[in-house]
Amino acid sequence: MDALITQAAKARRAAIALSAVSREAKNTALLNSARELDLAREDIISENAIDIAAAREKGVSQAFIERLTLNDARIDSMIEGLKSVARLDDPVGLTLDSFTRPNGLAIRKVSTPLGVIAIIFESRPNVTIDAAALCLKSGNAVILRGGSDAIRSNAVLMNAMRRGVERAGLPVDCVSLVEDTSRETAQRLMRLNEYIDVLIPRGGKSLINTVIKNATVPTIQTGDGVCHVYVDGECDLEMALTIAVSAKISRPSVCNSAETLLIDQKIAARFIPACFERLKLAGVEIRGCEKVREYAPYVLSATDEDWAMEYNDLIYSVKIVDGVNAAIEHINTYGTRHSEAIITRSEQVARKFQNMVDAAAIYWNASTRFTDGGEFGFGAEIGISNQKLHARGPMGLKELTTYKYVIDGAGQVR
Amino acid sequence: MDALITQAAKARRAAIALSAVSREAKNTALLNSARELDLAREDIISENAIDIAAAREKGVSQAFIERLTLNDARIDSMIEGLKSVARLDDPVGLTLDSFTRPNGLAIRKVSTPLGVIAIIFESRPNVTIDAAALCLKSGNAVILRGGSDAIRSNAVLMNAMRRGVERAGLPVDCVSLVEDTSRETAQRLMRLNEYIDVLIPRGGKSLINTVIKNATVPTIQTGDGVCHVYVDGECDLEMALTIAVSAKISRPSVCNSAETLLIDQKIAARFIPACFERLKLAGVEIRGCEKVREYAPYVLSATDEDWAMEYNDLIYSVKIVDGVNAAIEHINTYGTRHSEAIITRSEQVARKFQNMVDAAAIYWNASTRFTDGGEFGFGAEIGISNQKLHARGPMGLKELTTYKYVIDGAGQVR
Repeated sequence: MDALITQAAKARRAAIALSAVSREAKNTALLNSARELDLAREDIISENAIDIAAAREKGVSQAFIERLTLNDARIDSMIEGLKSVARLDDPVGLTLDSFTRPNGLAIRKVSTPLGVIAIIFESRPNVTIDAAALCLKSGNAVILRGGSDAIRSNAVLMNAMRRGVERAGLPVDCVSLVEDTSRETAQRLMRLNEYIDVLIPRGGKSLINTVIKNATVPTIQTGDGVCHVYVDGECDLEMALTIAVSAKISRPSVCNSAETLLIDQKIAARFIPACFERLKLAGVEIRGCEKVREYAPYVLSATDEDWAMEYNDLIYSVKIVDGVNAAIEHINTYGTRHSEAIITRSEQVARKFQNMVDAAAIYWNASTRFTDGGEFGFGAEIGISNQKLHARGPMGLKELTTYKYVIDGAGQVR
Repeated sequence: MDALITQAAKARRAAIALSAVSREAKNTALLNSARELDLAREDIISENAIDIAAAREKGVSQAFIERLTLNDARIDSMIEGLKSVARLDDPVGLTLDSFTRPNGLAIRKVSTPLGVIAIIFESRPNVTIDAAALCLKSGNAVILRGGSDAIRSNAVLMNAMRRGVERAGLPVDCVSLVEDTSRETAQRLMRLNEYIDVLIPRGGKSLINTVIKNATVPTIQTGDGVCHVYVDGECDLEMALTIAVSAKISRPSVCNSAETLLIDQKIAARFIPACFERLKLAGVEIRGCEKVREYAPYVLSATDEDWAMEYNDLIYSVKIVDGVNAAIEHINTYGTRHSEAIITRSEQVARKFQNMVDAAAIYWNASTRFTDGGEFGFGAEIGISNQKLHARGPMGLKELTTYKYVIDGAGQVR
């Protein structure tokens, strides 16, 4: 057996052993890991420095280096993350439903771990600890495969966490890192159906597309966000301006920020000048449809590709539409089923929009930026699902579980 | 655009339109379809006769012909199915959870249809109506791709249903049949991520494996059942005999019937003679491990492959194990996470088994044969999931839905 299969088989055994582990032991493992991280600060920072030096030599961007960097503040934040996950309610072993059938069978639907979760992510070493903590708390074994540029950082973090896990008496292989960061190994990981229950890719569109194309393991797709703000003809103009601008500029790099602004033609003449002035001030590049350019000839022309683009940047595509039906049609054509907002005074129009738009989270008079595990009160999140099976929107601990039916009988046969 | 993409795009549009359709209209469509089937009896039976004649000419088995055959009783059963699905509670539009955040955002989690469901199934034309009814009731558009040998039967059934749907004012393309039954078209269907939200294969292992290997659309795997009965040392012997035998013989062709009998060595000497006598009387072929053959040298030897085999037939593999831990280990190694049973007097042993066995349904002192939508009280079922994402075990109407978060604000930004 080669290294990957050996590792996956160990994770599978650890997952089964985890189902007999107490809540307290899992929490102890998380708190131990926090302490081990604290003790390993020096090692973490020096291994990370080697990763950073190698990445610099390859000529990566400053943003890349920024994501790769671990310092005392980031280590503190990982430690705090472990402690706060330990404090969250345990999502496993809850009775979700129960009923007794006429033949006397007593059926209980009980939440259980998914089993073995594999997570493929890019060179952000803090994900190693954050993701492992959520998987462990929800009773899952996890196999992490991070980006090659973070391998030394990830390895030292994982070693600390495994010490914490082992000292709590948990099977050490319930958390592990794939040390071979080749593409071939990542692709093999996507096909280990015998050992892996769920694969969660965390990263950009190209990673997610590779996973969709290659994975045979069930996957949860996260984070693809072409989100829209639709400004209806009947709206509070100031509220619409605030939301339309803020949803773009408050943090353009994240998936819940808006990429396209849809404006009801009834309000275009009043809305566009004020809105574009604020966007310009914030340094936003505007790409408008032909009708938008009649009001603002100074903006760039949007092409068909713009409507499907996740810029993750200070770029906004803007389109004038003929009322809510056209807005719904546009969103259902170009959206990625993530987060959508309507600004309107009409409850009837808002409900139509919320009902007919196909997305995980649909806001009436609020920014799309609230689609987030923390903002929803989930305590933590592993990602934002924009698929429909299993979980939609922010995924917290509960979304890392499945269920089983536990049935008690008295000799019934059929 | 070719025929398949045109059809899928129409289904996608129909799915969006369905989200604005009332419960009454969906029920009317189901009842209309029942009436149209009744009116089309003659056509259905004559088209089915052509399919049967062609299949006979190909030399298919009698069991195949039996599944392919439509007669008045089967048409009655489809009509009754449509009426009973119309009577079930609507699973869409329910508030599953609601909470208000400190910033005033009011968040509701609401059940919604999945969207467009594709179902690939074998030559059982009654599935056309049964599956379409469940999808329609749960607000989903459905694209059905049945086996080529049933194409004329499926087409005449689908035409009747589409008349019923259209006369209720629903978009006719919310139910449709892929008329090109080539493998290439089926494989393309598995990759139409732009139009299809979920793919459900209904059929044997080779269909399911083809889907796992080729699909890029999210799938729900159903019906793969290597189920076990474990007879613990401390049990009611007569109850154990009844369940162990019945779980095999009551309907061996279905996925929830038992394939392997595990016997605690503490009870083997008492249990095996009585059990094997009953199994022999019922015509069951027994394949035992070496220890079993010490008690019953007249049975065949089980090979390693036997432990992973879904016989769907009057064949039973039998193994002696050293207590509940060994039983759990065996099941977690060879089982398909479908249905498992333990027969024991000890609640402690039963709970350990139910906790540590990884399966959709785990029975204490009852047969595995109860894993079924009807037996669970779900009213109807589209299949039995043996994957862990989204839905596990019997899938009724609720399991054909997802959810969205509907959020009402008052101008909040972040």
